[in-house]
Parts: sequence; C-alpha cells; structure tokens
Amino acid sequence: MKFDFEYYNPTKIYFGKTAIDNLADELENYGKNILLVYGKGAIKSIGLYDKVTEILKQSGKSVVELAGIKSNPTYRQVLRGADLVRKNNIDLILAVGGGSVIDCSKAISVSAYCEGDPWEKYWENFEPLSNKTVPVASILTMTGTASEMNAGSVITNEEKMIKGGRVFTPNVNPKFSILNPEYTYSVPKYQMVSGVFDIMSHLMEQYFSGDDDNTTDYVIEGVMECLINSVRKALVNPQDYEARSNIMWCATLGLNSVTGLSKEQDWEVHNIEHQVGAYTDCAHGVGLAIVSIPYYKHIYKNGLDKFVRFAKKVWSVDVESMTKEEAALKVIEKLSDFIKELGIPKSLREVGATEEMLTKIANSTVPGGTYKHVDNDEILEILKECY
Amino acid sequence: MKFDFEYYNPTKIYFGKTAIDNLADELENYGKNILLVYGKGAIKSIGLYDKVTEILKQSGKSVVELAGIKSNPTYRQVLRGADLVRKNNIDLILAVGGGSVIDCSKAISVSAYCEGDPWEKYWENFEPLSNKTVPVASILTMTGTASEMNAGSVITNEEKMIKGGRVFTPNVNPKFSILNPEYTYSVPKYQMVSGVFDIMSHLMEQYFSGDDDNTTDYVIEGVMECLINSVRKALVNPQDYEARSNIMWCATLGLNSVTGLSKEQDWEVHNIEHQVGAYTDCAHGVGLAIVSIPYYKHIYKNGLDKFVRFAKKVWSVDVESMTKEEAALKVIEKLSDFIKELGIPKSLREVGATEEMLTKIANSTVPGGTYKHVDNDEILEILKECY
Repeated sequence: MKFDFEYYNPTKIYFGKTAIDNLADELENYGKNILLVYGKGAIKSIGLYDKVTEILKQSGKSVVELAGIKSNPTYRQVLRGADLVRKNNIDLILAVGGGSVIDCSKAISVSAYCEGDPWEKYWENFEPLSNKTVPVASILTMTGTASEMNAGSVITNEEKMIKGGRVFTPNVNPKFSILNPEYTYSVPKYQMVSGVFDIMSHLMEQYFSGDDDNTTDYVIEGVMECLINSVRKALVNPQDYEARSNIMWCATLGLNSVTGLSKEQDWEVHNIEHQVGAYTDCAHGVGLAIVSIPYYKHIYKNGLDKFVRFAKKVWSVDVESMTKEEAALKVIEKLSDFIKELGIPKSLREVGATEEMLTKIANSTVPGGTYKHVDNDEILEILKECY
Repeated sequence: MKFDFEYYNPTKIYFGKTAIDNLADELENYGKNILLVYGKGAIKSIGLYDKVTEILKQSGKSVVELAGIKSNPTYRQVLRGADLVRKNNIDLILAVGGGSVIDCSKAISVSAYCEGDPWEKYWENFEPLSNKTVPVASILTMTGTASEMNAGSVITNEEKMIKGGRVFTPNVNPKFSILNPEYTYSVPKYQMVSGVFDIMSHLMEQYFSGDDDNTTDYVIEGVMECLINSVRKALVNPQDYEARSNIMWCATLGLNSVTGLSKEQDWEVHNIEHQVGAYTDCAHGVGLAIVSIPYYKHIYKNGLDKFVRFAKKVWSVDVESMTKEEAALKVIEKLSDFIKELGIPKSLREVGATEEMLTKIANSTVPGGTYKHVDNDEILEILKECY
C-alpha cells in the first residue's frame, strides 16, 4: 500500500434472494415523491416492475416514471430526468436496472439543481460538485459496472459525440442497493458476457499499474479467479445461483474502490472504448474486450513483472519454465482465448465500426496509460490492429 | 454467495504517511468536548501524543483524558470512561492506540447513556442497542483487531472472569480512522506477531465454514497470502513500509465485514481464547495461535475439502500428490510451522496457565463451531493438547 488513500463508501447493500424485502423499510427514510428510472422493459418481463410499483404504492409514494434509458445513456435523457426532478420535487431517484440506468440516475441527481450546463461543468471541466443533489437508490438487474456501489456516472453526449465518465464524491453513491442474483438469470448471454468482461477490465485497469506488491493486488487476483471460474459455470447453467451471485458480487467489489486502493491505475482501455462506444454504440464490455488485446500487446514490455505475476497467479501459467517475455505473451493469449470462450466478437468491424471512424475515434480519445503513455497515433495503431 | 447478507460500513479511512493531516478537518464535524483515550504511553514515545494534542488545541477543543487502557480492556475502565463522558458532556471519543483502546472507546460510547448495567444488557444478554451513543474516532497504532473499521467491542469483566465480545450496529463504528503504518514501526516484535496471528485467525474463522465456493473465499485467500508474505518481510525489516502497510490493511479487511460476507463463520477458536485470555491475560493473538492447532486437528475431518483448498491455495501444498486427509494434516503442520516462524509460544503453560485453570477455562467457554460443534468436554481436550 505504497500510496496514501482515502476510503469511504456509505452505500448500504442488501444482497440475496430476499433482498427486496428491505425496500419498504428503506423507503421510510425518504419523502413522498419518487422518480422511478428504468430501461426498455426487461424489468417488466421478470415481474420486477410490478413488485416494485406495488411496494411503492403500499408505502404511500407518489411515482413519476422515466423509462427507456438506453444502454449508453444519453445526456438528453439526463436533462429530461433533471426536468422531472425539479417539476415534481423528487425526494428519491429509484433506479431499477443495470449500470446504465444507475449512471443516468446519478447524472440526473447532480444535474437537476445545477446552475449552468451540467455536461460542461461536470463531465467536461470536472468541476467539483457544488449544488444540491437528490438521493439515488438502486435495484440491480444486470451486473458489470458496480454503479450500485460507487459514485461513477458515464454519459454519452450525442451532439458532441463524446462518451464521458465522471466519478463524484461518495454522497452521490446510491444510498442503498438491492442485489438479487436471480434478477440476472434472464439477462441474454451476450449482455452477461459483456458485463463479465467489463468486470474483468475494471480489475485489470486497477491491477496493471505500479511495481508494488500490495494487499489490493492480492485481492484483485482472488476476485479475478472467482470471476473466471464462475462465468464458466454460468455459461453451462445460467441459473446456477452461486455462480451468478459470485459474478454479481465480483462486479461490485471490482469497482467499489476496494480493488483500487493505493493503486495508480491505468484506465486507458476504458478511455479508448468510450470513444468506440460513442461511434458504434456497441456493448461496453464487448468494446473493452476488443480493445484489450492489442492494447496489452502495446504496453506489456513496460510492466513485464506484473504480466508475469498475472500469468502465474490468475491463469496458472507455468512461468518458471519460460522467459518473462514468453510468460507475458502467453497470458495475453490466455486472455484472448477467454474472450473467445465467452463468445465475444474480436473485431471493431463486427460491432459496426467503419474504417473511416478509426481516425475519429483515435483523435477523440483521451490519451494516457500508466506503464506506458499511449498517444493518439498509437491509439490509432491499436484500433487498426483490432479492426 | 449462498447466503443473503447486508453490508454497510460507514467508517471513513485515511490511510498513509500523511493521514493525520486530515484530523483537523474531521474534528470540525464534532463539538468542543473530546475524550482522549489511550493506553500505557506508547503513543507518547513515538511523538503521536504531542502531535494529536497540538491539533486538538489548535482546533479549539476541550480535552479530557482517559489513559492506561489495558491490552485486555476491563469493564471497570469502561465505567470510568462512561462517567467522564456524562460529566464532561463529551462530543467525540478519540481513541489513539490499538484494538483494545478502540474497543474500550466503543464500549464507553454505548455505556455512557445506558439505563441499567451495560455489561448485563449488551455483553451478557445481547440486547439491541437502544440508548444514545457518542461518536468514536480512532488513530491506529497497532494492527490486528480491525476495530478501526467495525462495530466490535471485546471487554473483560474482571469480577465475573469473562472476556465478552459484542458486535454492535454500524453506527457504533468509528466515524473515521487514521491509519499510518509508520506508527506501527515501534510496536515490539511480540506484539506485532500477536497482531498478525489475530488477523490470520479472523480470516480462518470466516474461511472455515460452508462447502461453498464464493467470492469471499477467494478474497480471504488473497488477503492471507499477502499477510504471510508481508510478515516475513517485516520480520527481516520492521521498517519495510510496504510490508507494514500491507499488514495494516490486511488487518482492516480481515474483520471489516468484507471477508465475512455470505459466510456462516466459525469463531470457536476465539470463543476458547477469550476464556484463556480472561484467566491468563495473555496477548490475544498468542492465545489464538496456541489454541488453533489442536482445534483444527479436532475439526478438519468435517471440513476436509476446505482444508485441502486452504493447503493448495494459501500454502502451495502439492495436494494432487496426496490424499485429502494427508493434505489437511499437512496444512495444519504448515500453520504450526508458521506460528513457530513468528516466534509465538506454543503452549498455554508458557503464557501462565496452570493445570487447574484448564477445567475452568473449558467450562466457561461458549461451545460452538461450524464444521463440527465442540462441547465443553471437547474444549477441555483441546486445551489439554496445547497445555
């Protein structure tokens, strides 16, 4: 734990088959006016919409709905939600869905009473949060982003063609989150594996930094191993409760700060993917998987020991029998095989990118990286390699 | 994650070399009257007492001191502290020290405004917390108990000869805790290794339960491995910052709930040690180490697969080359070797137990256990085996 850190995460988690039973009690802590935010209706097909609205009704709440949140939530939707919050004097924003719905709800929370343009202020200029916010809570139906237990909010500004991420202070965290792994049973396979790779990528972005050997590295390795074992079980039996619950909790731990403490962290795969997503609207985890392999091939030489450790500890590569270089390349191959095993596309072409998009994506990506700083030219090379 | 769980941990952690710089800002959130609780003066020898009292003075606080808290804090000290809180209308109890000082401070917090006898109410009858409490904060100087980030409070009632533990609700958690690994540099080796075994024992008590394969098991394994590697480095160089900081954070993670989520948990080694401690006043971690080996020999057959997993994952035992029984016995031997490596005594005799105490310790221990329920007769056997 080489670097100083602060840790404060006040989200209350209710996890398990009966987690929803805590909703009514929690609602007592908030006023009458609820903004119910959800996506395109998946929560209706699993009966969750009826359940939640029934509990809200019995709790005497007055409910306004904002439905149809997209998988890459748009700034336009945020502004619509902010308008609803002000007009209806909302006391609690209840997000029911996956990370997109929760991210959008947090964005609404910070935007509703913002003076000036929230996008410019918070997602573009990263100004400190200065205005009143509205409490957010979540009921999670899809895992991956850990938005249920952090203050992150990734929003796509369609006019500017920018997908921008912002991490606010912990008082923007959901006050409580309800996590029932059974809600994820009906998530289509493509979205499940996309979520899984998103988790894996969060863990790798935090892991691949520093030459240190700290507690967080060991925790990440444990979570990665659990995630890999569990998704293999869930692919065989999507209703394997233990496997689905492990994936759900790995996701939360993967980005609720615990797996990032005292780590420099990289996040350049995410930077690149955000622009891939802005141009192609591909599933976030799929974009990450596509970009990861060429990215890690570009940087591994600058973080060789960590790649060898990754090979040995997470993928059981017999690193003693090979050079460091061989071990690093071997584990990138293992990661590539894992992506294939998950059934995730391996090229940008498959998710709708055109050749002319590549330069635009590269030039609009924030350059960065920890082991190695990659600039926009190198990002273009990386994109070409996975086109 | 087979079992439903709730997780809520509102303690704010400041970790690192400059963590103390946050004290003044935090103090602004509390009133004028501070009860400063500490032990037998170690905080004076490292200059921390002067530093903290200077910050308190500059923050305009009025300070009452309760010094001399013992390593097994007594109920008598708790009552004295509770009296000071009432008489001085204390706004914040600031614990500066190790787990004993923090545990004692929490006990004072819940006892000050308790109607009736707090011991009977909270440590004996486990009644829900019903009275007003006083905020507690901590500055940690010795690692082990994780008291800096949980709601536990272990107190020794000298008159009743009972060392009793109680976990309160998260609003008894320290509001904030300041963790600077450098404060632990001067902790004597005996106390350091005692703290390390306490951490190891917390992790084992949570790990050895269930036949499940959940995220928490993987996280525990990572933390154990880090702890073992780090204490080996700290024994060579007590001022190895990374090693000491890892030990400190392993301790916090080891009992801040993260490593217990969805686990049944055992805690019988702790039950037995509490009574060993009540009779001998031995260091907690030392008592745990002494009891662990005969205890695990008594129960391993009932949790064989988990012991094999422990052998393989944490101690790199080549389990494929042996029977499960052999692997389990091998890992208990490895654990025993580790205790020896730490330089911890291996018998109750060495920490001052007499033969006639054994029956008293056994009969006053709360029986229990998860893989196997051990009764008072079996506890006596276990004690005899390590006498």
